[in-house]
Amino acid sequence: MVFPFAAIVGQEQMKLGLTLNVIDPTIGGLLIMGEKGTGKSTAVRSLAELLPEISVSRGCAFNCDPDGTSLCGICSECLARDGELKREKRKMRVVELPLGITEDRLVGALDIEHALKHGEKRFEPGILADANRNFLYVDEVNLLEDHIIDLMLDSAAMGNNSVEREGVSFSHPARFILVGTMNPEEGDLRPQLLDRFGLCVYVESIREKDLRVEILKRRSRFDDDPEGFLDSVQKDQQTLSEEILQARENLSNVNIPDEILEKIVAITTEIHVDGHRSDIVILRAAKALAALRGQDRVTNRDIGDIALLALNHRLKRTPFEDAGTGRKKLQELLERLDKS
Amino acid sequence: MVFPFAAIVGQEQMKLGLTLNVIDPTIGGLLIMGEKGTGKSTAVRSLAELLPEISVSRGCAFNCDPDGTSLCGICSECLARDGELKREKRKMRVVELPLGITEDRLVGALDIEHALKHGEKRFEPGILADANRNFLYVDEVNLLEDHIIDLMLDSAAMGNNSVEREGVSFSHPARFILVGTMNPEEGDLRPQLLDRFGLCVYVESIREKDLRVEILKRRSRFDDDPEGFLDSVQKDQQTLSEEILQARENLSNVNIPDEILEKIVAITTEIHVDGHRSDIVILRAAKALAALRGQDRVTNRDIGDIALLALNHRLKRTPFEDAGTGRKKLQELLERLDKS
Amino acid sequence: MVFPFAAIVGQEQMKLGLTLNVIDPTIGGLLIMGEKGTGKSTAVRSLAELLPEISVSRGCAFNCDPDGTSLCGICSECLARDGELKREKRKMRVVELPLGITEDRLVGALDIEHALKHGEKRFEPGILADANRNFLYVDEVNLLEDHIIDLMLDSAAMGNNSVEREGVSFSHPARFILVGTMNPEEGDLRPQLLDRFGLCVYVESIREKDLRVEILKRRSRFDDDPEGFLDSVQKDQQTLSEEILQARENLSNVNIPDEILEKIVAITTEIHVDGHRSDIVILRAAKALAALRGQDRVTNRDIGDIALLALNHRLKRTPFEDAGTGRKKLQELLERLDKS
Amino acid sequence: MVFPFAAIVGQEQMKLGLTLNVIDPTIGGLLIMGEKGTGKSTAVRSLAELLPEISVSRGCAFNCDPDGTSLCGICSECLARDGELKREKRKMRVVELPLGITEDRLVGALDIEHALKHGEKRFEPGILADANRNFLYVDEVNLLEDHIIDLMLDSAAMGNNSVEREGVSFSHPARFILVGTMNPEEGDLRPQLLDRFGLCVYVESIREKDLRVEILKRRSRFDDDPEGFLDSVQKDQQTLSEEILQARENLSNVNIPDEILEKIVAITTEIHVDGHRSDIVILRAAKALAALRGQDRVTNRDIGDIALLALNHRLKRTPFEDAGTGRKKLQELLERLDKS
Amino acid sequence: MVFPFAAIVGQEQMKLGLTLNVIDPTIGGLLIMGEKGTGKSTAVRSLAELLPEISVSRGCAFNCDPDGTSLCGICSECLARDGELKREKRKMRVVELPLGITEDRLVGALDIEHALKHGEKRFEPGILADANRNFLYVDEVNLLEDHIIDLMLDSAAMGNNSVEREGVSFSHPARFILVGTMNPEEGDLRPQLLDRFGLCVYVESIREKDLRVEILKRRSRFDDDPEGFLDSVQKDQQTLSEEILQARENLSNVNIPDEILEKIVAITTEIHVDGHRSDIVILRAAKALAALRGQDRVTNRDIGDIALLALNHRLKRTPFEDAGTGRKKLQELLERLDKS
Amino acid sequence: MVFPFAAIVGQEQMKLGLTLNVIDPTIGGLLIMGEKGTGKSTAVRSLAELLPEISVSRGCAFNCDPDGTSLCGICSECLARDGELKREKRKMRVVELPLGITEDRLVGALDIEHALKHGEKRFEPGILADANRNFLYVDEVNLLEDHIIDLMLDSAAMGNNSVEREGVSFSHPARFILVGTMNPEEGDLRPQLLDRFGLCVYVESIREKDLRVEILKRRSRFDDDPEGFLDSVQKDQQTLSEEILQARENLSNVNIPDEILEKIVAITTEIHVDGHRSDIVILRAAKALAALRGQDRVTNRDIGDIALLALNHRLKRTPFEDAGTGRKKLQELLERLDKS
Repeated sequence: MVFPFAAIVGQEQMKLGLTLNVIDPTIGGLLIMGEKGTGKSTAVRSLAELLPEISVSRGCAFNCDPDGTSLCGICSECLARDGELKREKRKMRVVELPLGITEDRLVGALDIEHALKHGEKRFEPGILADANRNFLYVDEVNLLEDHIIDLMLDSAAMGNNSVEREGVSFSHPARFILVGTMNPEEGDLRPQLLDRFGLCVYVESIREKDLRVEILKRRSRFDDDPEGFLDSVQKDQQTLSEEILQARENLSNVNIPDEILEKIVAITTEIHVDGHRSDIVILRAAKALAALRGQDRVTNRDIGDIALLALNHRLKRTPFEDAGTGRKKLQELLERLDKS
Repeated sequence: MVFPFAAIVGQEQMKLGLTLNVIDPTIGGLLIMGEKGTGKSTAVRSLAELLPEISVSRGCAFNCDPDGTSLCGICSECLARDGELKREKRKMRVVELPLGITEDRLVGALDIEHALKHGEKRFEPGILADANRNFLYVDEVNLLEDHIIDLMLDSAAMGNNSVEREGVSFSHPARFILVGTMNPEEGDLRPQLLDRFGLCVYVESIREKDLRVEILKRRSRFDDDPEGFLDSVQKDQQTLSEEILQARENLSNVNIPDEILEKIVAITTEIHVDGHRSDIVILRAAKALAALRGQDRVTNRDIGDIALLALNHRLKRTPFEDAGTGRKKLQELLERLDKS
Repeated sequence: MVFPFAAIVGQEQMKLGLTLNVIDPTIGGLLIMGEKGTGKSTAVRSLAELLPEISVSRGCAFNCDPDGTSLCGICSECLARDGELKREKRKMRVVELPLGITEDRLVGALDIEHALKHGEKRFEPGILADANRNFLYVDEVNLLEDHIIDLMLDSAAMGNNSVEREGVSFSHPARFILVGTMNPEEGDLRPQLLDRFGLCVYVESIREKDLRVEILKRRSRFDDDPEGFLDSVQKDQQTLSEEILQARENLSNVNIPDEILEKIVAITTEIHVDGHRSDIVILRAAKALAALRGQDRVTNRDIGDIALLALNHRLKRTPFEDAGTGRKKLQELLERLDKS
Repeated sequence: MVFPFAAIVGQEQMKLGLTLNVIDPTIGGLLIMGEKGTGKSTAVRSLAELLPEISVSRGCAFNCDPDGTSLCGICSECLARDGELKREKRKMRVVELPLGITEDRLVGALDIEHALKHGEKRFEPGILADANRNFLYVDEVNLLEDHIIDLMLDSAAMGNNSVEREGVSFSHPARFILVGTMNPEEGDLRPQLLDRFGLCVYVESIREKDLRVEILKRRSRFDDDPEGFLDSVQKDQQTLSEEILQARENLSNVNIPDEILEKIVAITTEIHVDGHRSDIVILRAAKALAALRGQDRVTNRDIGDIALLALNHRLKRTPFEDAGTGRKKLQELLERLDKS
Repeated sequence: MVFPFAAIVGQEQMKLGLTLNVIDPTIGGLLIMGEKGTGKSTAVRSLAELLPEISVSRGCAFNCDPDGTSLCGICSECLARDGELKREKRKMRVVELPLGITEDRLVGALDIEHALKHGEKRFEPGILADANRNFLYVDEVNLLEDHIIDLMLDSAAMGNNSVEREGVSFSHPARFILVGTMNPEEGDLRPQLLDRFGLCVYVESIREKDLRVEILKRRSRFDDDPEGFLDSVQKDQQTLSEEILQARENLSNVNIPDEILEKIVAITTEIHVDGHRSDIVILRAAKALAALRGQDRVTNRDIGDIALLALNHRLKRTPFEDAGTGRKKLQELLERLDKS
Repeated sequence: MVFPFAAIVGQEQMKLGLTLNVIDPTIGGLLIMGEKGTGKSTAVRSLAELLPEISVSRGCAFNCDPDGTSLCGICSECLARDGELKREKRKMRVVELPLGITEDRLVGALDIEHALKHGEKRFEPGILADANRNFLYVDEVNLLEDHIIDLMLDSAAMGNNSVEREGVSFSHPARFILVGTMNPEEGDLRPQLLDRFGLCVYVESIREKDLRVEILKRRSRFDDDPEGFLDSVQKDQQTLSEEILQARENLSNVNIPDEILEKIVAITTEIHVDGHRSDIVILRAAKALAALRGQDRVTNRDIGDIALLALNHRLKRTPFEDAGTGRKKLQELLERLDKS
């Protein structure tokens, strides 16, 4: 049983970053940087727990969406043959990517045994198949091997995993919410790779004593009596869940005024980030936030609330600046822009 | 035959750390740092020897608890089919994790030979299967490969080992008392990994001559006549064993006053540890200690006696401080808090 | 669905480099250096999307051109037997070369399973087979292993992939448009390897706010309604596509006056590039540009417009010069030559 | 044919260290440090040659002692079935552990071929099986891989080798006299590992000319006429052999007065060795020496004669001290203790 | 189609080095050092193209010479059985040795599949088999692994490749013209290995504008109309080919006066090269040059023209000298010797 | 065809070192240090060529001596069964140990294929089998992997190769004349390993012009007409061969006066070599030299002529001394000892 999302004390940025990705998975995932023992893994698991079951093509190893346009090869065949796909409900999962994983286990591989026995090649799904329409959680992403990160990020970007082995090619949708964590003290990610995470937050442990006692109390109560504790926050959980679902539906109705586009560009050009990915990420995340807030258009406030999440990991840093400098500059810029 | 636990001279912190983990295995294990030749391995083995046999599902390779809620796949099937599980008694064991172990031998692997012969895939239990409900002893844990430590600590944290190989997935309970040792002179563990051991003690050899002669005498008597020696301490062993079993039963009846929670938080915020894990560990260990002492509530004294064990490996250290500095600060803090 | 080529804002050098290679693939590919997030991958994919389908020998795993002189072994046999090759149309593809690829997967390997079952050795096509007559896209080419880059560049140079494994030799055409990207901050390519890319461009993100807003608008419109967006630029796409096809046909009719040859040599000797490959690349690229411009002969302007693309990666650099110095020198040289 | 032990000139410490281990193998082996070409390997081999044959369970691959309590699985079964074990005599051997040995060859492995042919898994004995009740000689032990040294020392400590492979577990006694050599100039052993050798001696070549001529003469005579040379020292060999056998029988009758225990502890605490292993090693080795000398109790002289062998490799060394300093201190300490 | 040898502009030393090795393959190959893009690979391929077909034993995988004394095992058997070998003509080839090649692929290996199917072991020829009586071209030879260079150079020196695998031994002639290239800026070859190339030349790109325009013109004409271009130089190609064949026949008739031997020794002792290999290489190369020039004896001029090619890679260099210094000294020495 | 030993000009130390090892192979081999291209490989091959054929047990893969006491397992069985061994003559060979060799190929391995087919395990001889009673030539011995050198030197020392693989143990004589070469500039051998070569010589190329011309003349004559050249030195070859055979027979009749032993010890103690191996090597080599000179006793002159060969590689060197210093000291010492 997982500690409930609604009962997590503090860590608002992390919770916001996760929630926005659930509302619009094309935001491109979340990188959580910071201290150990701050409940990163718990937050992801409990958010997944909160979400309603998803409808999948029955028995599909790739969690294909029976109403989606992108299907795995097997589902495509079934649909073509039967005109529709049978359905089942599945709980959303948090799939973990372990350190030391091999390429074959990530993207899938041929089932040699099946081939030897039945004389036909068959594809054995990998972790990216499990991850489709779920969360993919990568602890200490900076310790993975380069070519594994690459494969994972490519799949995340394409929403698809294509594998070709010994003349058998297979492709299946791989749209997942990527959540990575890293402790920057244990080695960097190349800027190339940082840039491919949509949002990024820094977490540290909470220093206010009252909050901290509250955390400990809740944890202790949960440990002693999980069911009882869950009951006590059931209503908050329900509210949160409904807000998220509502936001998902609203998303396509949120408008983006031209001055918002200009503001985004003003921020990213002044702050000198490389490339254009930050612009579109700010836009998407602000739209998701507007939808969560029940608005019909993105406002300056949404941009202000979202900018740091989109730029945290894209701020350029001179050798003698620490991460804080960049964030302070951004803060000042946002204030200056608001005034002008 | 193992030297009896009750006859071990000194090393009280190490013995306490082990005992508390036996009373409440969710404390999260013990890391023993320090000198070679101080009887670390002997202590673990003799504590296991002292404990009563456990009841396991008959023939189960995973030591499943027939009264537990978490079972391996095979036991789950048997229970579903027969309505109950047959039982047998087994002695608790100290399972060792050798350096250079492979991932497959740790988490288990497919039994290829069985697959080839009987045409069905079968799971071959690994060391984590052996370790379930036993001690897992990892000598020189800082010399293990990163991804092996990760897998081990993940299993320890989840109480479960899930493996997926070539389309066969298998999951079994893996709740063990993790005991690691390391000599800090031979390389560190990343703070990330240190943090995941519940408690930590430093051991060094005993310098008082009388105690040292006593140790040598006992060892010599044990070597010359093991059975005779065991008989001579049988009563102490019995008492110890009963105290531990009693404490286990008391555990759920120990209360935690609010001022205790506040004191814990006061300690961890003043001492600036990263994350929140230390809070909950102090709480659990203090509760176990209260239970061992036959109390019905945790007291300030329990917290004081336990704080160092929970913080030894979580104290931040500036480059020019040695471990001792942090411990002295903690001592002063505890005294200050007691006065206030 | 891919963002349309005609709607890409700015990045003219990159678009020109790609287009020239499509007009004359013997130019030898394009190396794109520079910042992350500047749409490198999108540009290649959308250009491929723009191009008409190609005619291939039906069912051929190597995309053999049924009207070409260079065929794979199987097509050669078919042609010899039947006097002609059956045809099918295929969309041009962007084949990716992943980091960490093995030699076997690149050049192809023996199909062991087939050999065991049917008692005859058979060749399993690799990525170079897929790439024939397509784009081969190598992200972060400087992070590939040396012998993989070597094999790839050798195939690119020969237009052919020859493999010999256990007594079976196989050879197939491998004429592809090679597009590599690299971020020079993450490690160099050896000059040896740089030299084997025909052209090279530097890209960076666009800093003009108006253009940047325009990019964001287009991207946002495309995300919200891909079909509608595509319709809106359909005419531009069509025009571009026809210009390219027209240029391909014109290519053989473009003449090269002697003073053009002299100018090329004047540039490359003054600028002290190693070797002679730059001369021929400038010539070919200028010819392709002239064809694209509908000219019947190469002019000084073509040379001027092309020189930097051909020399960017071949300029020698003293340790204290950065890339910009060389480019400035080249600019001055071109102006001086124009005056003289 | 091996050069006879009784004819070895000088190197008394090395010969004593070996002999004591033969009298009481629980002393824990001997580490020989020092110069090349000083006859280390010859000494071990010739001592093995000198010893009488041992009685083993007939045909047993693990050299099981038919009168012992610890047996391999096969012998256990035979004993259970037949009530007794057949016997045969075997010469003691010096089993070598080569550099670069694999784990499987050290501890044993499954006999795959047997499994494939007879459909049952069988254990293939490794070097530790050969070594049981023999000498295990490890030349340049500091050049072995860490996890191999670990496995070897664990077996030595437990007197047992337990292996588990693919569901087959096997365990057999592995009580051997471990003799390691190392040249400290070629890399250290971790203190952890040094500590696990019972005794340690330093050897260097003999510089007295007369002795050296004598060595050369004997060697030359042995080379020219091995049988003749052996005959000439046969009586000395016989005497030595008998003394050792006699000491083995006396061992259990040697008493240890309390002041001896106190003296041991006085030494090890003053000299600040880590851990308690040295105390018990001094005790055992002194007892073996007393037995060799035909005494019925350990005396101060025995302790003095043995202390350096037990402490040579356990003396702590500051960075600017060489090994000699520690030994001088120990010498002074012994003298001081003798006076007091 | 390859650019014709006779149309290559400049690079006289490289062309001479290749030609002399064709005339007398025992000279020991050519190492080409220097800049990228200078047509090294083209020169070798076009020289091979120029040469007449060779007569080989029909179907022989090792290109055995039916008139030679050294044959592969299979040809030896055929010859013994039939009294003669059937013949076929084959074009000389340029066999490439790729970076990252395995030992098995270089020297050949057992054909496991054949063994499993037909119950007899058979040898699978490697690259050294292909190379027999052809060119072996090793691009960037300094980047090969040590033991691969060693195997290759050993075969080159012995003119033979002997392999023994699992009890099957096989040996075949491996007389090839070894051509290696390297860019000294990317790492050295050990002097040991340099010494085993017969000759060595430095190449750099041509800086004279007229020549450079000529190169570009020819290349451009060749690209536009290969057949036409080949026709235009056909006569020069023919002449060159005949000169080489004539020189081969003359070779054994060229005499070496004693003063020539003395001059060679005067050069190599004054210039302090290691070893004696340079003497014999100068002798052989000068003889081949004399043969090419139609002379009946080696003259001082031949020695002068050849010395640098034989000594380029054997000149000793103090740390502060560059390669040029050694060459200047040699030039001065040659002039001094000519005067004396 | 190999250049004849008797025609080699100069390099007297190398030729002497090889010859003495042929006379008494227990001297322990020769290490040749020095420059490339000095005919090291030629010298060994031509000496092998010079020696008469050896008599071996017919068909034996291990070259067993039918008159020897040490036989391989198969020959032992044959001898036991038939009472005698059939014989055949074989030419002595120079077996090469290539860089990068595997352990299995060195010591031999199980013949898996045979096992699978015939159901019995069989030993596949390795290079040490080929080497028995031949030369084992190891070029650049300092570049071999440590555990390979170890295995090779152990076999050399024991005169035997024992292998155990999967329950099959095999042992065969491995008495070979070990010849290693190394260029000290490319990395050292550990003193441990140096010490295990019996003798050591330094070679450099010959600088006297007359000798050098003579070398070139002979080489050139040999290249032009090998048979003719061999005929011209046939008589010298014959003489040399007979002298060596004669010396072998004399060897056991050479006496060693006591003052010779004292002189040897005087040298090695004054010169401070580690260990005692040098003493016995000097003795054996001096004896072989006396035998070659037809003497019936070792003289001071023999010692003087041999000392450097035995001590070259055993002289201790302070960091600032080069090899020459040690040799000069030895020279002075020998002179001083001669006077006294």
